[in-house]
Amino acid sequence: MIFSSFKIDKDTPIYEQIEKYIMIQINDGMLQKGSKLPSTREVSSVLKVSRNSVVTAYENLESRGIIQSVKGKGTFVIESQQQTDNDFVLKWDERFNEYGRKCNELDIMKTEVPWKKGMISFKSIAPEEKLFDLDEIKRDFQTICANEGSKILNYGYAKGYKPLIDYLLKYMEKKGVIIQNKDILITNGFTESFDMIISVLTDKGDVVLCESPTHNTAIKIMKARGVHIVDIPMQYDGIDVEKLEKAIIEYNPKMLYIIPSYHNPTGIVMKGEKRQKVYNLCKKHNIPIVEDGFNEELLYSSSHMPPIMSLSGLGNGVVYLGSLSKILFPGLRVGWILADKKLISMLESVKRSRTIHCSTLDQALLCEYLNNGSFEKYVKKVRKYYREKYEFAIREIKNNLQYKYIYGEGGLHVFIDLGDIDARKLLKCCYENNVIFMPGDIFFPGSGGSTCMRLGFARLSNEDIKKGIKIIGQSEKEIRKQV
Amino acid sequence: MIFSSFKIDKDTPIYEQIEKYIMIQINDGMLQKGSKLPSTREVSSVLKVSRNSVVTAYENLESRGIIQSVKGKGTFVIESQQQTDNDFVLKWDERFNEYGRKCNELDIMKTEVPWKKGMISFKSIAPEEKLFDLDEIKRDFQTICANEGSKILNYGYAKGYKPLIDYLLKYMEKKGVIIQNKDILITNGFTESFDMIISVLTDKGDVVLCESPTHNTAIKIMKARGVHIVDIPMQYDGIDVEKLEKAIIEYNPKMLYIIPSYHNPTGIVMKGEKRQKVYNLCKKHNIPIVEDGFNEELLYSSSHMPPIMSLSGLGNGVVYLGSLSKILFPGLRVGWILADKKLISMLESVKRSRTIHCSTLDQALLCEYLNNGSFEKYVKKVRKYYREKYEFAIREIKNNLQYKYIYGEGGLHVFIDLGDIDARKLLKCCYENNVIFMPGDIFFPGSGGSTCMRLGFARLSNEDIKKGIKIIGQSEKEIRKQV
Repeated sequence: MIFSSFKIDKDTPIYEQIEKYIMIQINDGMLQKGSKLPSTREVSSVLKVSRNSVVTAYENLESRGIIQSVKGKGTFVIESQQQTDNDFVLKWDERFNEYGRKCNELDIMKTEVPWKKGMISFKSIAPEEKLFDLDEIKRDFQTICANEGSKILNYGYAKGYKPLIDYLLKYMEKKGVIIQNKDILITNGFTESFDMIISVLTDKGDVVLCESPTHNTAIKIMKARGVHIVDIPMQYDGIDVEKLEKAIIEYNPKMLYIIPSYHNPTGIVMKGEKRQKVYNLCKKHNIPIVEDGFNEELLYSSSHMPPIMSLSGLGNGVVYLGSLSKILFPGLRVGWILADKKLISMLESVKRSRTIHCSTLDQALLCEYLNNGSFEKYVKKVRKYYREKYEFAIREIKNNLQYKYIYGEGGLHVFIDLGDIDARKLLKCCYENNVIFMPGDIFFPGSGGSTCMRLGFARLSNEDIKKGIKIIGQSEKEIRKQV
Repeated sequence: MIFSSFKIDKDTPIYEQIEKYIMIQINDGMLQKGSKLPSTREVSSVLKVSRNSVVTAYENLESRGIIQSVKGKGTFVIESQQQTDNDFVLKWDERFNEYGRKCNELDIMKTEVPWKKGMISFKSIAPEEKLFDLDEIKRDFQTICANEGSKILNYGYAKGYKPLIDYLLKYMEKKGVIIQNKDILITNGFTESFDMIISVLTDKGDVVLCESPTHNTAIKIMKARGVHIVDIPMQYDGIDVEKLEKAIIEYNPKMLYIIPSYHNPTGIVMKGEKRQKVYNLCKKHNIPIVEDGFNEELLYSSSHMPPIMSLSGLGNGVVYLGSLSKILFPGLRVGWILADKKLISMLESVKRSRTIHCSTLDQALLCEYLNNGSFEKYVKKVRKYYREKYEFAIREIKNNLQYKYIYGEGGLHVFIDLGDIDARKLLKCCYENNVIFMPGDIFFPGSGGSTCMRLGFARLSNEDIKKGIKIIGQSEKEIRKQV
């Protein structure tokens, strides 16, 4: 009897175990093509399992073409021992091209210290999911099912879900942007938006200007794509305009990538006058501005600050990359590019050849949420929540750390220059005490930032913020003693 | 009174109209910085609108930093006429690189005749959404909300949603694949999977082998990425193995891309012996096989046919690209790559630098649907549905068309070689009679296929299939008369 070595495992459905057992017998050559299997009744009685389980197992194997039951004769193996071999072995790591290798090398999820259970992590700037109104989302889901039916589960358009595009055009219009000669492409978020822009507007070795420090994902994308990054230092109020002009003249770059509001990682909000200067400079030299609208919605301590794009009226020199992911539902992968109609039309084809389009469901759900006013209510709520958290974190930092400068004026994180302490040394010490943060150097395209750190706090309780910063402070003191 | 030229539009909320009106007045210079606005009471009485609408408009403008209300004094414009200029104009089409231009040129949504209302379109091979069980999806949504809470709306992992990966590993194991040294990366679907593979394993000018004809999206991606495509003719039972070996020896290609089951566009299912030959050839020459699992789930007329990957046992030379999109929920953007663990780890970093990860919600929803058994029931249902539709379409084709050969044995489409009629000429004629289809040449990487056509029928009623094919037949006759 082939089932002599069968042992029941309580955690797996019986039929799956029988199925697997028979497959092993076939693969081991114990059951040959043409072998007759015992009847389901026999198996059930020998193994003391329900006959239904055996029938299900046999049915599944039959539907997979492994066995066949012949009326009045019994069940037979029709698939012989599988002709698998194990010798087709390639060295995949040697087959990766430079782009693939760079993506791997620059992946901070692999290179930076990982979070472990029980740790207080200041690494993340993901939003606090407890603030999401899940009941509202449930209602929105019902609404879109009722309105759109199964369409929300079928293919959509590469450019994006029309009602969402319409909403976002209006939304950007309210920010002061003239939209009549512009259009929107829905993307999977900032990362896809920026990767597409870099992929189609630069060739290997082309120069792109950016702030230093800047968003580390942008650095990674540019480096992986072979861009020659020329970084312009940040002053306390934003990019150094004089150095920007020099670099423009020296390098004739393909574009300037800039984060004017709640800059990542510094949190600096660039003021109107400086925005105008940057705009004028780029216009004078015909350098496209790629404006990262990162966290613009969070602006809580400064007054309204229209995006740089709003300065360009009917011009088309500014490309705006929008995302709500840092405050709202980053798990729904939806961001957008607002730009000249012609540019969007070309990017639409690029999107179609990379991911076809974004999730129809995600777009419809987000659109319903935005359209029914839930978003405005939500923004008011989270602005207050994060402002209080920000102020709390600042107080704790001031009370516990010795630093040269705290940058910025808000956001979901604080960027600190410790002045004379190596942040990686500090991180190592903190790690031993179960606290981690982002070392500042990862935000610098070149060297720099070795004494800086970014503390993200959005998902931490005030208690953990207090405790964590205290530990950072103690670790800092220890290191200072050693120096 | 500044509202003298205000005209109410019934289709837009009043507060929005007031907001917009004030913005126009400011941008036109009619309202200067410091100008006092009429009180909300006055506006409401003059315009005969509810005071609430006016208050909302003023509040919105204030939160945007355009106006400011000063207690006891009134409301004032604080933002002066916007300093926009229209002169920053770039010629974007001249700034696109070769990759961008190729994506645009090869976009058949732009180059092929578009569908118009009232037309019968055989172009699409998207599934019939009426078959989707929306009520089941609603229940699944409730379940994941209950189990996962707001997590389904927050960031996830680049590799994918763990329970979904686990399900798919088991799923592939049931197809006969040994999974122990392999892993899965969740992607946005076949397009992203293949684009990533091509992006990291080939450099410009590298040779990739594929079938001719083959999936037109794969052709587009390879051409856009600068791959040198060497296409191997299809015989009636699949790729020409002799020519494949010759090409391998001549070109030492980076990979073979192949669609063994329900091949797109021909519908051919490659039999076991040929699969083994292809596998042995590639193994002998160390050429990775990229296997497109397209429509494998639909197999309805042939017996179980394990994927080529199942032949490789513990070897790692085969990469499997999976997708359910052609039968299930293509609007949920979820596909997968199953491959060697090391390769997946590198691809995970590539995914992270391109789109971070796929929609958490989509993945959780699909996973719930798959796990609770709904999928198996669904596959049984659609197999029957599409088989009947396929057989119906074949009958109509045989009754109405003159052709040289009908390829394949099923799927959501039929590929026909008309023998001596130019398919584009036929398409032009059909278009005038409100019927469109895919001309065969788009599936040929080089020249070829000019007498072929693909008819997709999944979303057409039998009535439209009958009517559409009749019109194609009549058009064909007309053209034959002219010849």
